[in-house]
Amino acid sequence: MADQIVVIKRRKTRRIYIGKVPVGDGAPIPVQSMTKTDTRDAAATLIQIHGLAKAGCEIIRCAVPDENAASALREICAGSPLPVIADIHFNHKLAILALEAGAQGLRLNPGNLGKSEHVKTVAKEALSHKVPIRVGVNAGSLSEAWREKVHQGALTIEEAMVESALGQIRLLEDCGFDQIKVALKASDVPTTIMAYRLMAQKCDYPFHAGITEAGTPRTGIIKSSVGIGALVLEGLVDTLRVSLTADPLEEVFVGIRILQTLGLREAGPDLISCPTCGRVEINLRDLADKVEEVLAGETIPIKVAVMGCVVNGPGEAREADVGIAGGKGVGIVFRKGEIIDRVDEKELLSALVREIERYKKEIR
Amino acid sequence: MADQIVVIKRRKTRRIYIGKVPVGDGAPIPVQSMTKTDTRDAAATLIQIHGLAKAGCEIIRCAVPDENAASALREICAGSPLPVIADIHFNHKLAILALEAGAQGLRLNPGNLGKSEHVKTVAKEALSHKVPIRVGVNAGSLSEAWREKVHQGALTIEEAMVESALGQIRLLEDCGFDQIKVALKASDVPTTIMAYRLMAQKCDYPFHAGITEAGTPRTGIIKSSVGIGALVLEGLVDTLRVSLTADPLEEVFVGIRILQTLGLREAGPDLISCPTCGRVEINLRDLADKVEEVLAGETIPIKVAVMGCVVNGPGEAREADVGIAGGKGVGIVFRKGEIIDRVDEKELLSALVREIERYKKEIR
Repeated sequence: MADQIVVIKRRKTRRIYIGKVPVGDGAPIPVQSMTKTDTRDAAATLIQIHGLAKAGCEIIRCAVPDENAASALREICAGSPLPVIADIHFNHKLAILALEAGAQGLRLNPGNLGKSEHVKTVAKEALSHKVPIRVGVNAGSLSEAWREKVHQGALTIEEAMVESALGQIRLLEDCGFDQIKVALKASDVPTTIMAYRLMAQKCDYPFHAGITEAGTPRTGIIKSSVGIGALVLEGLVDTLRVSLTADPLEEVFVGIRILQTLGLREAGPDLISCPTCGRVEINLRDLADKVEEVLAGETIPIKVAVMGCVVNGPGEAREADVGIAGGKGVGIVFRKGEIIDRVDEKELLSALVREIERYKKEIR
Repeated sequence: MADQIVVIKRRKTRRIYIGKVPVGDGAPIPVQSMTKTDTRDAAATLIQIHGLAKAGCEIIRCAVPDENAASALREICAGSPLPVIADIHFNHKLAILALEAGAQGLRLNPGNLGKSEHVKTVAKEALSHKVPIRVGVNAGSLSEAWREKVHQGALTIEEAMVESALGQIRLLEDCGFDQIKVALKASDVPTTIMAYRLMAQKCDYPFHAGITEAGTPRTGIIKSSVGIGALVLEGLVDTLRVSLTADPLEEVFVGIRILQTLGLREAGPDLISCPTCGRVEINLRDLADKVEEVLAGETIPIKVAVMGCVVNGPGEAREADVGIAGGKGVGIVFRKGEIIDRVDEKELLSALVREIERYKKEIR
């Protein structure tokens, strides 16, 4: 992992804690998601949270749109294996109720709470519960006044996002509250990246990163991987959430994979497979899909290679712990580039499974 | 697009041409793919190339493993709507045959051609055909000597890749050949990024970027988006190919989307959809999937939003050309954040399709 440490230089930030999970100041980047069940249905919400926790999610957020949701939150917080962040808009009473219910984080913009008295009340309660607040500005939810300035050309959209977020932060700081996390999301990636870069010069609060409303998995995975990946690489991410119009398990899968791709998380098996070309003589796509299925249940860090060409296969996938390559009816099994077995092409998959089992025993 | 221009500062490079397609020196970044048919089957290969061209692919590469493939290349080059790059290993005669067949680019490593006489012959022929050569080093195919140096700790893997590629480049330069493009691929993203960063300090030849053997779409799309996206953002990409163990159409789709995500390509419709949360009151996932199907055939640049909440929907997706939001049985249709229609929730999809059609007529 030495390479990765060289590549990414994390921005210096303060540290906050969502429950026991540290965020910022170089802590491992926790992956978040948000429940998509009706929060008032505590049982359904808890089932979803348990599934997400099993998939590697580390912090969960629940929308709290009304008092019934706030009361359900008590059961949810009590039963959740993950620290719960309450997502609140406009109503400061819901924030207080969420804190009383055991929420370990709040996501709200103090500027939307109405009177400054309300902000003070929330800040005081959050402080006494040791609960941080995430303030966040979405490009689309900028207030009329900020949008007007962008429209007039006085500010760029990312400058308006940053100024607006700084205004939210100041409202909390004025109440003596500094357990803050910041998010600046736009559905377009360049704006998002520039907003975070700019904010990095303005404060040292940890950043929550994401591309908002990225869409369905088909395109949303690409947008999120490019955008969040770039921010992680620039050291600007302290925690992240992938937003997809999909099962939240998919959000967690993609978030973890982004971190794994940048060497920041071991997330079980890594499958390397060649794209195939005019040289390939076996049905590699089918074989790779089957190997992916075999690996789906595994949690051990193992690099597996599936290559379409006996000549180049082992060399090209030298860094794989276990690999196979096939062509012209013959298949080979290799480990770290060394050929250890030759089998009939039809036996390749079972030979690979056998070798993976052997590897698992060795590293145990 | 002003934002995007600010974000990405392209590295200064020489320019080469693959056929009529410029590469480098600030030219738009062409998306490449590679045929996965047997090159000897010219008809099947041409069908695949036509499909890829229609999907937005701009340069195509074909493996040329033997003389039969080299002869089929004549028919392929004659019938291809895209400039064809011949992918050659070890055999300099195949390179000459490919040039005679009409290949407009070569991908080969001169160090693998054997005698220096062979390198001279290929360089001379390529020069007279005005055909550039891509040299490229894959982390996995580093020669024994370079790997030994890495093993001893004398060089990092990316330093070895860069030195090895510079050696390949020098062999061509010694023959007076400078129509060169460089690729440095590893299947792990940090190594790839560091290799390109390092090479950017060493030469001004244009870069072909990719993450090699990225795997199946499930994880390969994430790896490629993070890796290629980061390189594009750093201005280090002059042309790119996404490698997936999948239909090459998928490679082209992902490549184009990476560029679109960074504002470098208008690739038809862009669907913004909210990830849904405990507030959502309609089946948004289903609706978003259907809208995605509706948009699949469109080529016009239109930003469409599908939001789960009437209150925040139009505001959050203000930048969308056309959008819908629903909840509690009522749906709204909006354009650039302005509500223009209210419909029954069941009518939302058809109202959106109607509005998209109207928008298409307006921008024509």
